[in-house]
Amino acid sequence: MSNAKIIGLAVSDVRFPTSLEQHGSDAMHTDPDYSVAYVVIETDDGLKGYGLTFTLGKGTEIVVCAVEALSTFVVGKCLKDITGDFRSFYRLITSDGQMRWLGPEKGVIQLASAAVLNAVWDLWARAEGKVSHCKASYIYLGAHQHHLVAPCPATVHTMPLWKLLVDMDPMKLISCIDFRYITDALTEQEALDILLKGQEGKQKREEQMLNEGYPAYTTSCAWLGYPDQQLKQLCTAALRDGWTRFKVKVGADLQDDIRRCALIREMIGPCNTLMIDANQRWDVEEAITWVTRLAEFKPLWIEEPTSPDDILGHATISKCHNRVMFKQLLQASALQFVQIDSCRLGSVNENLAILLMACKFQVPVCPHAGGVGLCELVQHLILFDYISVSASLQNRMCEYVDHLHEHFKYPVVICDAQYMPPKVSLPCHYFDLICKLR
Amino acid sequence: MSNAKIIGLAVSDVRFPTSLEQHGSDAMHTDPDYSVAYVVIETDDGLKGYGLTFTLGKGTEIVVCAVEALSTFVVGKCLKDITGDFRSFYRLITSDGQMRWLGPEKGVIQLASAAVLNAVWDLWARAEGKVSHCKASYIYLGAHQHHLVAPCPATVHTMPLWKLLVDMDPMKLISCIDFRYITDALTEQEALDILLKGQEGKQKREEQMLNEGYPAYTTSCAWLGYPDQQLKQLCTAALRDGWTRFKVKVGADLQDDIRRCALIREMIGPCNTLMIDANQRWDVEEAITWVTRLAEFKPLWIEEPTSPDDILGHATISKCHNRVMFKQLLQASALQFVQIDSCRLGSVNENLAILLMACKFQVPVCPHAGGVGLCELVQHLILFDYISVSASLQNRMCEYVDHLHEHFKYPVVICDAQYMPPKVSLPCHYFDLICKLR
Repeated sequence: MSNAKIIGLAVSDVRFPTSLEQHGSDAMHTDPDYSVAYVVIETDDGLKGYGLTFTLGKGTEIVVCAVEALSTFVVGKCLKDITGDFRSFYRLITSDGQMRWLGPEKGVIQLASAAVLNAVWDLWARAEGKVSHCKASYIYLGAHQHHLVAPCPATVHTMPLWKLLVDMDPMKLISCIDFRYITDALTEQEALDILLKGQEGKQKREEQMLNEGYPAYTTSCAWLGYPDQQLKQLCTAALRDGWTRFKVKVGADLQDDIRRCALIREMIGPCNTLMIDANQRWDVEEAITWVTRLAEFKPLWIEEPTSPDDILGHATISKCHNRVMFKQLLQASALQFVQIDSCRLGSVNENLAILLMACKFQVPVCPHAGGVGLCELVQHLILFDYISVSASLQNRMCEYVDHLHEHFKYPVVICDAQYMPPKVSLPCHYFDLICKLR
Repeated sequence: MSNAKIIGLAVSDVRFPTSLEQHGSDAMHTDPDYSVAYVVIETDDGLKGYGLTFTLGKGTEIVVCAVEALSTFVVGKCLKDITGDFRSFYRLITSDGQMRWLGPEKGVIQLASAAVLNAVWDLWARAEGKVSHCKASYIYLGAHQHHLVAPCPATVHTMPLWKLLVDMDPMKLISCIDFRYITDALTEQEALDILLKGQEGKQKREEQMLNEGYPAYTTSCAWLGYPDQQLKQLCTAALRDGWTRFKVKVGADLQDDIRRCALIREMIGPCNTLMIDANQRWDVEEAITWVTRLAEFKPLWIEEPTSPDDILGHATISKCHNRVMFKQLLQASALQFVQIDSCRLGSVNENLAILLMACKFQVPVCPHAGGVGLCELVQHLILFDYISVSASLQNRMCEYVDHLHEHFKYPVVICDAQYMPPKVSLPCHYFDLICKLR
């Protein structure tokens, strides 16, 4: 790798008016405008790295403000120095003596850290692929306005992140993880042992993924704000496209939920898979009552029944904000599925820690995706998980939501309800830049 | 109360260069510049309410940005409508469908909510006291510069917050609390029963507080960055001033900690109280080893041994970010002392929920204070706790730190190591405005 220095960081507030058509609506988030804080870093030799974190509209400017505050830790650093001791850099970003008061490692500051670190990982993957220069371009849709900021040229050959991770030496992978606060659940040695064991059969699993892809499920058919007629149409189309696993939003009104779940179960039949998601709507007792009533529709899981902070109150949970929360959920046997997030957790670094803990505790990982860019991002992590860590597809699948992919230069590829891995020989980055105007 | 409407919200980034003299330094925050996001709201009849949240310098501008985003929920509202259904207003501020993605109820967005809600409570107390108008004034010390923003006139007669709370009807108090996510630990009926029971002997306890004050302990003698000589001088002075309870910062270097704890224990003698605080420095195993070594100095508690998110790993913890975290710590018997915070939790509303849960679980409350304005704020909450909820002083004391009080118009009053309650007949607000230039 060259000794390129990061000389600039630009961040944008990108919003899409998804609430107009109730896309993404659930019991707690009734009118989301899917948005991102979009980060571009640039080196003195002209290379760029792209990162983002996902938001729901209002308040994205706060995350942008936080990214700007974090930029002082990034600009002026050599990429080689960051990746040479990524653990220290991760801690610099997430544990500054003054800034950590604003978290630590949670909320706005964690979302901003994820966006910045995602851009650094993207830059690393590009640099490893000895990539040709790529001019940045993106759109700004704040306040429902459309602005094309720059033209969008260039095909670029690079290394997808999943391949960078899969080929990385286990010791090097370990050096990217901050083990602070998790050593009582997973030591460095245990993590290394898992990765060394994962080397067996790796090549075969990589080929399998390239040929068959990674299993996906869809959340696009049953947003809470969709009328029944739309739900039926979308479900019919999804079945025709080969989908076998479906997630339904619930939690606002029990009678509505019963009607919608009955409808979906009837349409998909008894053998396909149904999951339900309450998006943190209930108290603990309320969740038990509600889910008991919905049990007849045989959901595989109930997602986010209550507060994401409530470890003890959970039978299952998702989208935690850091490795310390996931650690306890595993220790307390409080979840049956781990739903990692590429933008709420501290980027690849923290996701590595959680994949390894999930492997140790033998809980399957089924990533959260959707939003803006989450499918594009998380596919790399789940491919790495299968090829190098878990080596299993049992009870595993990655969420898929069919919105906003048209804004990506290289959108995620789904074939027959499977995520098809971005190939090394094709111009598919870790995070492909947003470039196509709606 | 009049039908006054809130017509404006202004927020400032106020920073003090405390790092220059190592005030506030600990194992994780080695160079804090004590700061606040300072909020002033104004009604159409000229009344003002003042609120703040505490920060450590860098990133305060992010909290300011978040306060600005929240201002849309406040400006245009009538005070009477807010206080008439404060629970709904609390949820509006903390659970907006788009904004809650940035938390929920944690990190930057929770700090900003606290600052805004603190200002609303201040406005309520002033309105109840039928206060005369008060012109706002404060200083700005960002980037170590001093700016006097406005002159500081007027003595004002008003009702201190503790008195507003103590005199409030129990049903009204309950209506200020959002019970979402805590009903498995505390129901509304249980909370009401506690408050009704607290009516017994209330008058006597109020008189006791006005005469004797509330017990305090000091953290000012032993910041981690202070040399031994300074530590000795400060300890001598504190003993002379009547202090009997002392907190020492630990966690950076074990040999240093042993020397400093030995020194303090020798100076204060075997009968005075010593507490230690690691400020989240350790992993769980590390905490056990370290604390075992320091046990010979007989600390009453060890504060924040590890991540504030780690419920299961805790023997004791403090400064949690919301009621859901505190609930679990109580359910898991993972703490022996509850340390509420007036600015990290969702203002008075959420602190009420936690005081009531602590009462039910019979765990003493010993508030976190210090920083900027935390002593001035939290004294009202702990007075309310003693007079109306716990009715006990056993194992109870409120932290005191002797910095930056000179910037307040009506600083906290300590007599013989006791917090003396602001009196109704004196011009002492809930949050007294910063007005005196250093």
